[in-house]
Amino acid sequence: MSFTRKVNVMEMDIDIDVLVVGAGVLGLSSAYHIKRQNPEKEVVVIDKLGGPGQGNTAKSAGGYRNLFTSGKNRLLAESTVAWFRHLQEDLGRKIGMTQTGYLYLLGGKQLGKREAALEKMRDSGVELRYHDAEELKRLIPDLVPDFSGDEEAEMMGLDPIEVGVQGVSCGVVDADALARRLEFELIKVGGILMYNRRVKSLILKPREELGIPGEPFVWQDVAVVGADTTRGEFKAETTVVATGAWSAGLLDPLGFDSIMRPKKRCIFVFKDPKLERLYKTDGFNEQGVLPFTQLPSAGIYIKPDPSEGSLWVSVTEDLGREYLLEDDPQANEHVYSENAYYALVKYLPCFKDVRPVNMWAGQRAINNFDKIPIVAPGPGFIYVGAATGNGIMKCDALGRLVAAQVSGEEYTELYGGSRVKVSDFGLEERNVERETF
Amino acid sequence: MSFTRKVNVMEMDIDIDVLVVGAGVLGLSSAYHIKRQNPEKEVVVIDKLGGPGQGNTAKSAGGYRNLFTSGKNRLLAESTVAWFRHLQEDLGRKIGMTQTGYLYLLGGKQLGKREAALEKMRDSGVELRYHDAEELKRLIPDLVPDFSGDEEAEMMGLDPIEVGVQGVSCGVVDADALARRLEFELIKVGGILMYNRRVKSLILKPREELGIPGEPFVWQDVAVVGADTTRGEFKAETTVVATGAWSAGLLDPLGFDSIMRPKKRCIFVFKDPKLERLYKTDGFNEQGVLPFTQLPSAGIYIKPDPSEGSLWVSVTEDLGREYLLEDDPQANEHVYSENAYYALVKYLPCFKDVRPVNMWAGQRAINNFDKIPIVAPGPGFIYVGAATGNGIMKCDALGRLVAAQVSGEEYTELYGGSRVKVSDFGLEERNVERETF
Repeated sequence: MSFTRKVNVMEMDIDIDVLVVGAGVLGLSSAYHIKRQNPEKEVVVIDKLGGPGQGNTAKSAGGYRNLFTSGKNRLLAESTVAWFRHLQEDLGRKIGMTQTGYLYLLGGKQLGKREAALEKMRDSGVELRYHDAEELKRLIPDLVPDFSGDEEAEMMGLDPIEVGVQGVSCGVVDADALARRLEFELIKVGGILMYNRRVKSLILKPREELGIPGEPFVWQDVAVVGADTTRGEFKAETTVVATGAWSAGLLDPLGFDSIMRPKKRCIFVFKDPKLERLYKTDGFNEQGVLPFTQLPSAGIYIKPDPSEGSLWVSVTEDLGREYLLEDDPQANEHVYSENAYYALVKYLPCFKDVRPVNMWAGQRAINNFDKIPIVAPGPGFIYVGAATGNGIMKCDALGRLVAAQVSGEEYTELYGGSRVKVSDFGLEERNVERETF
Repeated sequence: MSFTRKVNVMEMDIDIDVLVVGAGVLGLSSAYHIKRQNPEKEVVVIDKLGGPGQGNTAKSAGGYRNLFTSGKNRLLAESTVAWFRHLQEDLGRKIGMTQTGYLYLLGGKQLGKREAALEKMRDSGVELRYHDAEELKRLIPDLVPDFSGDEEAEMMGLDPIEVGVQGVSCGVVDADALARRLEFELIKVGGILMYNRRVKSLILKPREELGIPGEPFVWQDVAVVGADTTRGEFKAETTVVATGAWSAGLLDPLGFDSIMRPKKRCIFVFKDPKLERLYKTDGFNEQGVLPFTQLPSAGIYIKPDPSEGSLWVSVTEDLGREYLLEDDPQANEHVYSENAYYALVKYLPCFKDVRPVNMWAGQRAINNFDKIPIVAPGPGFIYVGAATGNGIMKCDALGRLVAAQVSGEEYTELYGGSRVKVSDFGLEERNVERETF
């Protein structure tokens, strides 16, 4: 005979000031800045998962860069990265930040496509270092920069590497450590986190309720007043929707456009003696590790993970990889082993026959219109997202923009002191230049 | 004993020059202009339904207007409307075009919201006539412009009518007649129409096929080479995707963003002796009919249908009506009878107890980013859409833009002689001002 204690997960309805839906970097950063600026307000973050950043944040590649052609877009990244640096170097909070640099290996078609954007960034003062093919070969002995005589590579249409463009003020950060740090900072200022609560829907109500069945009517002014979750209703003066690739699931039913499409990104992790020399590439940074490196063809990039001495390989799939929202996306191994692999081993034969030791998939929320994140207010709510794979490296700036929306401020100051106009990043008065890099 | 003759619908694979998917106004107009400019090319339009415009074209309200704040957006409409006029008046092709005018009844909140846009249009030379509440009451005896003393209306938060702004060069067109006319013109120039063929998917292939299983690989350049339909494959040099609200169904699997969300619009048709006086409103136009009229609250508008002497009522539902794609959307009668009706009868008590004689629903494809249609090329294809409920009134201009994309022209001439830059309406070099009216 056995006794089972039945635990009732109580459903409770709660009234608060600000409800933030989503404990990814954008939700946590938003909540932190809201609470910091408004200590008297009750700020609650809810998430369907069991901890901070467990959605797509922790599944991201965790790169940061200042390589953007749009000045305002660059500012979002630069100010956030400066805050990362302050956090890690001044305050001693480890977030795995390593300035490895980014290295774009370019040649053929890709070089032509990128040239105008590179020139624009150079003119704006972005620090770029150029390495010719000879130098690249010397610095990265494993690299094959040209395929003359390799009929297969030519048949595959692989671009040769003519030049390596290094973004110096770029690198990697540990997304998981960052999310945990943000959670900790939020708790320190008095924010509340509630996990394992999935939002079923946002609650839309007339601003002046009549108490008649059928509300809201088309002639009523409506506003979001909170969210209905798997564990009760949360009523809030302001609701922040920071659910990344899942935003359409909450906003489409309202008839509010999240201006993004979700796209899967698989990451494959490698740790093998054959790759040790490549990982320990010297000459690009202080740490003597391979920079975050983009190959000219196939959208393949390689990220060094200094915490484990591993290399991560991923592919930015453009046309051909569907936009599709998944609740729990899984890595498709064949995207590596029967696809990207063939191109990767041409450029870096050291990957030959090396199998990934780990893999996972996340989802990017892509704004195809101007490629720049959105912080847009609606009645009773603020939507932050469409970060186009750049949510981590822009999280501090975006959190400040959300907080400014909550406070009704016209301008906000980013970390480092730059002032930006809040409505520039909204929809109705949007004023940003389309990002072309 | 009975014999049934089994008809085999033959599956056939066809090679053509240009495949246009969708026989709505945008598809037909695109095909017409492509074929007219390239008589040597084989241009085929396919559609899942059995005739022209049977998707959302025929379900639209069929209004046309030149009331837009964005100069380029206005040009799309003005040139198309000039072509409508040429078609009906010079060539004698009846498309039910009647210059009824548009009448925006404004007051309270709505007036404030609209003022800047109205001023901008006036400054751009758009012909507007202003009518004060007294004059409106005289011209439209059925209209109740203010609710002082009506507690219910005040409780409902209905805005009073302070002013009527009439767009003179606006009116209505018979969407169904227009689609049939476009089909006829297309056939005359040698275009081919094939109905009852549903596109299952667009076919994406590497530009240089290797004949290896698994193609296309991430390192290959890919292009759309046609469509797989319920009745065989169509291979085409260029595929035009003109499937309106359904575009995401074809483009999301490719990973190409249609930059629009589909929203249902229900139309309710009224023909009743009680409404005769309203229909025959004199003083706004030559025909002596009510203009296409927008009420200040609830997004309700009323369209006169001169072909049947009826009034159509619809509601532009903003926040609260979900974005949702339906294959065959049906009208929700309660949107009228248990919702909009309560506001409508306050402004126009003549609707009291009058039931609709007909109703249907269509879907608008809304571009929430800048509210302006998109004509964007991708490899092997051109996407035209996101017309935000304005597809009909911009169809000729959009068809010309598509044809210019097919021909690789940098500029195109719209009907009436205006030249526009083709890439201004694309995505990568988009250069249009967000529409605010």
